[in-house]
Amino acid sequence: MDLLKSLKLDDKGLVPAVVQDAKDGTVLMVAYMNPESLRRTLRQKKSVFWSRSRKSFWLKGESSGNVQRVKEIRIDCDGDCLLIKVEQIGGAACHTGHRSCFYRKAGPGGRLKVTGKPLFDPNKVYRH
Amino acid sequence: MDLLKSLKLDDKGLVPAVVQDAKDGTVLMVAYMNPESLRRTLRQKKSVFWSRSRKSFWLKGESSGNVQRVKEIRIDCDGDCLLIKVEQIGGAACHTGHRSCFYRKAGPGGRLKVTGKPLFDPNKVYRH
Repeated sequence: MDLLKSLKLDDKGLVPAVVQDAKDGTVLMVAYMNPESLRRTLRQKKSVFWSRSRKSFWLKGESSGNVQRVKEIRIDCDGDCLLIKVEQIGGAACHTGHRSCFYRKAGPGGRLKVTGKPLFDPNKVYRH
Repeated sequence: MDLLKSLKLDDKGLVPAVVQDAKDGTVLMVAYMNPESLRRTLRQKKSVFWSRSRKSFWLKGESSGNVQRVKEIRIDCDGDCLLIKVEQIGGAACHTGHRSCFYRKAGPGGRLKVTGKPLFDPNKVYRH
């Protein structure tokens, strides 16, 4: 079976892609791919997503330089989700400067607590 | 901030939830939650998803006994994705008997290869 042929796209033509640090297993982020962004990811060996807000391809790290070097790609049993294991250049995957987008943890009663410190200042990395 | 109030639901009223082994960081599966399934998850301390195919709540492990004991819940920067760290009872999260639903890995050229062996025989665990 072929990766691209196994994809089961949602009604918007996308699948979620879980991005995980290839070394320590930290889940860094979840973004979306369509077949062409997956093809580009395979070709460039860097994560290329489909930005649902901008409606365009999104080479992760294009503006910040913090690209994701792809080490492994997996697909789930249903074919409707991808798992991308990467080396995150710059250490942080989140636009807030946090290593992982999942930097908020639910405490008792569901109250959220920020864990860890940002690794960079987003105002310096993203020049507007 | 509150976990439930921070949820940004998609047009079907859902968010994807990445389920990760709390001990070794293996990504076990991705499923979907709505606010009520998240409330049940918080209350029961076991993963409760929304089954998109059956259109009903789905206590993971209800038929197999292989429930997921929830150890930690995180939410991403956008509030549109959850990360659930669990202890997977029975060891396997996938209905195929594999530990993880992501048991197929893309090789060179995108050809998929099954990694690992099933931990149980689905025909014995799911009685029809």
